[in-house]
Amino acid sequence: MIEFRSNSEQDYQVDSERITTYLQEIKTDPMGGWFALPQVNRHDELQKIKSCSKEIQSTSKFLVCIGIGGSYLGHRALIEALHPDSRTKILYAGSSLSSRELINVLNVLGDADFSINIISKSGTTIEPAIAFRMLKEKLIQKYGDNYHKRIYATTDSKKGALYEEAVSCGYNRFIVPDNIGGRYSVLSSVGLLPLAVAGIEIDELLAGADLEFQQVIEQQNSPEKLPAAEYATFRHQLLEQNFDVEVLASFEPSLCYFAEWWKQLFGESEGKHRQGIFPAATTYTTDLHSLGQYLQEGRRNIFETILNFQISSLQERELRIPHLSSNLDGLQYLEGRTLDEINRVAMKATIQAHRDGGIPVDELIIPDFSTKSFGALVYFFELSCALSAKLSNINPFDQPGVEAYKKNMFRLLGKPGF
Amino acid sequence: MIEFRSNSEQDYQVDSERITTYLQEIKTDPMGGWFALPQVNRHDELQKIKSCSKEIQSTSKFLVCIGIGGSYLGHRALIEALHPDSRTKILYAGSSLSSRELINVLNVLGDADFSINIISKSGTTIEPAIAFRMLKEKLIQKYGDNYHKRIYATTDSKKGALYEEAVSCGYNRFIVPDNIGGRYSVLSSVGLLPLAVAGIEIDELLAGADLEFQQVIEQQNSPEKLPAAEYATFRHQLLEQNFDVEVLASFEPSLCYFAEWWKQLFGESEGKHRQGIFPAATTYTTDLHSLGQYLQEGRRNIFETILNFQISSLQERELRIPHLSSNLDGLQYLEGRTLDEINRVAMKATIQAHRDGGIPVDELIIPDFSTKSFGALVYFFELSCALSAKLSNINPFDQPGVEAYKKNMFRLLGKPGF
Repeated sequence: MIEFRSNSEQDYQVDSERITTYLQEIKTDPMGGWFALPQVNRHDELQKIKSCSKEIQSTSKFLVCIGIGGSYLGHRALIEALHPDSRTKILYAGSSLSSRELINVLNVLGDADFSINIISKSGTTIEPAIAFRMLKEKLIQKYGDNYHKRIYATTDSKKGALYEEAVSCGYNRFIVPDNIGGRYSVLSSVGLLPLAVAGIEIDELLAGADLEFQQVIEQQNSPEKLPAAEYATFRHQLLEQNFDVEVLASFEPSLCYFAEWWKQLFGESEGKHRQGIFPAATTYTTDLHSLGQYLQEGRRNIFETILNFQISSLQERELRIPHLSSNLDGLQYLEGRTLDEINRVAMKATIQAHRDGGIPVDELIIPDFSTKSFGALVYFFELSCALSAKLSNINPFDQPGVEAYKKNMFRLLGKPGF
Repeated sequence: MIEFRSNSEQDYQVDSERITTYLQEIKTDPMGGWFALPQVNRHDELQKIKSCSKEIQSTSKFLVCIGIGGSYLGHRALIEALHPDSRTKILYAGSSLSSRELINVLNVLGDADFSINIISKSGTTIEPAIAFRMLKEKLIQKYGDNYHKRIYATTDSKKGALYEEAVSCGYNRFIVPDNIGGRYSVLSSVGLLPLAVAGIEIDELLAGADLEFQQVIEQQNSPEKLPAAEYATFRHQLLEQNFDVEVLASFEPSLCYFAEWWKQLFGESEGKHRQGIFPAATTYTTDLHSLGQYLQEGRRNIFETILNFQISSLQERELRIPHLSSNLDGLQYLEGRTLDEINRVAMKATIQAHRDGGIPVDELIIPDFSTKSFGALVYFFELSCALSAKLSNINPFDQPGVEAYKKNMFRLLGKPGF
């Protein structure tokens, strides 16, 4: 579904042998569970997600999703992008230690009916654990002994603090798979429950990912034309030429969180051993009036990846520049044309301008702005990220550096054992 | 008010002579009008802003601010950060060409009463001009001949398409000063009208900026202890040592748009002649579970500037970790302590971890999270940005590269004359 296009002068050559080896390694990696996930999502877990999401929609004006990093970025990214319609609105907590943010969530909740989806493999990560304590207290005050029916815990299948609490208090439980790390987990229960509550068709999402997966299986022995391998190779070769900042650019402001998800996926996978491409993001044409100056004429260590959606929705294709009797704004030459067309022209113009300015630009061609296409895009990025890290001899699935600030913090807070 | 702190091993020495020269150059630059702005904002313009903002609050549920780049980033940044209370909510349009975004604004408006603040020096920048046409059409449909009373045009004082239209149609007018560029304009009418409507005390904001300005005036002949000069020198010396990515970090998610404003200010001022520090931003502790891995162990061409607010609000200082009878989550050692205290400990822990990881870290010490402090911070960044660009022999006030995509776009759209 997703295609890779580089009209750049940068030459690249996919090494089929290495990619084939890496695909095998990923498939058999203890943390490679996301690879075949579109096929192996357990039927009973999916059914439970669907029935619980209907239950939440009928009982709750808000679902507060509590999680940090990979436990919230993926579903938030897709919800902000697709802007689905649902009776239940999703709120987020526990992804920072800001009291300002938590007070805001408590204010928005007010007296409305709500449920909690706490998403944490261990249950002891400090940010979500604190938010969960505070919101659980509110739930108990509001619903008394029945509070536990409104808690949906997505956690380890057999151990850990949250697992123990969920079992002993009778929360609804969903599984964080053992073989999938946080940043690769959006197509598991971690993402699927909030997505379903928000009104996204999760079957469509998984079908899109599955199309990408099928393509990999079909081409695993001759992967030189696999778009994810092309993208991984392209960016790896640019890094070897000292292009060490990648800007993910889209022409849709609603993709801001999707870019945050992408930044975690690539930054956390590749930023090790003093290596890795620094991931940044822009929204156009907005940022052409901001970082645009830097991209056009600043340091030449940047390359750019453009998200190019082929077909817009009917509603978008109908929004036209209206006729005015006067032409004081000089826009007469655009009257009757659609805003969508003008945005597409801006994309072409930007790609050309940045190439002329010395920035290597590649495009990811995505069929449309549908749930299915986003499922494919998620899978495409997960696979290209794993391949790209492996091309630099980096383990795409660990994150040893994340512990450094935690150790300091626990010591300063006087946590027992630190 | 704002202090600079570097506990880094990176040595730096402010060159008093050069800074004194640059301060003189900035003061007399044709685009240096922001330098003395805290003193020279015209009294009658400020009075008009205050009376019009009261009028808008009494007539409108929404004020749609139409502008792009410096015409919207500054006020949006402060409104999102300070989260003020007002009967009138601010919406944004015209900062992209996304039909998805514009349809969303039209849906939110529905049948509610609204006014428009169109902010454009020329009136012909394509993004705001298109959004203005579409929203003006809605205004005319709703209010007929009286539509013009609901349009507030912030534009050139004597020429240009929007000026002409505003005069001929009888819109309320505010002035974009000739001697202040977009990214330095938030403390002029460009920012002050939307800020006042949103419920921010603009006198407080200007008073904070004025405190910074007074400090510059007092120390202009011996500026080695001027914090803005220290910050500018520190980052310039890091750039000379090939630290070419700066990350602006805060521990408050509501500062996300403030970071976008900062990215424009520095990126557009310094990204020229294949030079400049690439500006990026993080929100902690959120991004410690995302880009944190990269910062801890990735490429060592990054330095970090932390926004450190000294005193929190009373409400924040009262949000405590509640006691639970069980200790299943292992948080007992935190019971009774405030979330605010834990967030501050996380800041200390992060600074130490990143320094240990080889990242130069500096801190900007800000008294509190008040409107006055943000006024000071805005002025502090504007001044350090201008000084920093001058240290690299770059003009801080032009943006020649922004035209490149526009020329391509106008040609592709068939605009007369291109």
